[in-house]
Amino acid sequence: MLTIRYAEPQDSLQILKFIKALAEYEKLSAEVVATEEKLRQTLFEEKSAEVLIAFWNNEPAGFALFFSNYSTFLAQKGIYLEVLFVNPELRGKGIGKKLLKHLAQIAKDRNCGRLEWSVLDWNKDAIDFYVSIGAKPNDEWTTYRMNEKTIAEFTKN
Amino acid sequence: MLTIRYAEPQDSLQILKFIKALAEYEKLSAEVVATEEKLRQTLFEEKSAEVLIAFWNNEPAGFALFFSNYSTFLAQKGIYLEVLFVNPELRGKGIGKKLLKHLAQIAKDRNCGRLEWSVLDWNKDAIDFYVSIGAKPNDEWTTYRMNEKTIAEFTKN
Repeated sequence: MLTIRYAEPQDSLQILKFIKALAEYEKLSAEVVATEEKLRQTLFEEKSAEVLIAFWNNEPAGFALFFSNYSTFLAQKGIYLEVLFVNPELRGKGIGKKLLKHLAQIAKDRNCGRLEWSVLDWNKDAIDFYVSIGAKPNDEWTTYRMNEKTIAEFTKN
Repeated sequence: MLTIRYAEPQDSLQILKFIKALAEYEKLSAEVVATEEKLRQTLFEEKSAEVLIAFWNNEPAGFALFFSNYSTFLAQKGIYLEVLFVNPELRGKGIGKKLLKHLAQIAKDRNCGRLEWSVLDWNKDAIDFYVSIGAKPNDEWTTYRMNEKTIAEFTKN
């Protein structure tokens, strides 16, 4: 049986475990700097993002991390889903879809104009699923990023 | 002479003018639903995003609209630049670069791990500029979007 609830401070270690499992799946483990303490501080003290946790028969099964974004053209806030992850051994039970549906309901309740997220281009299973539920790709756009080092260099001159 | 400051409620009409000019430049005018009143409410009452305005010899020259995002792998907040726009007749004076530098300084002051934004793939001048200041493209990722209608349909079943 599946249950979904908002994460609480005492879930920080579980969230870190999910993040490490996700990074392994995406072959990006070297990029994980998050710690239990950093998660506790940024998610539950600073409230920089929100987390939903899914439980399958009371065992942690997956999570969704999201925050508010904003559409300039709509002059309306939206929700950006930063991460959606289900433990590999629990896939195929519709847990990801139910997490996404739970979040879509939150978006509706909060009067959001959009629900958005990004996907790795090689993740065909995920893309097929997103298209099947009516999501549209922003094919013409690419995101650019400055990290802390680049920001420091750029602001120096 | 260039000055940059945070926008205030009385700038809502000017922000709307910038948005309409931007939409025309991007050939997306039909997508603009924003009004002066909606901007005033979402930006200055709900505080869903922040705006910097640039003035060239005291005339409004361009703007940057941004909000906080979050990196799961870093467990750290960042800044997402939703819009950077300079009036076409005032381009070539370095106004866009100074707006971006001003925002990078804000990112630094707020201890942000990243500064990110998206660009239309056909906008070669912008891309060349972003690469020249050290930004890196997230080439492997595509953003997917549900709009209000899709969200309503998805949550119905």
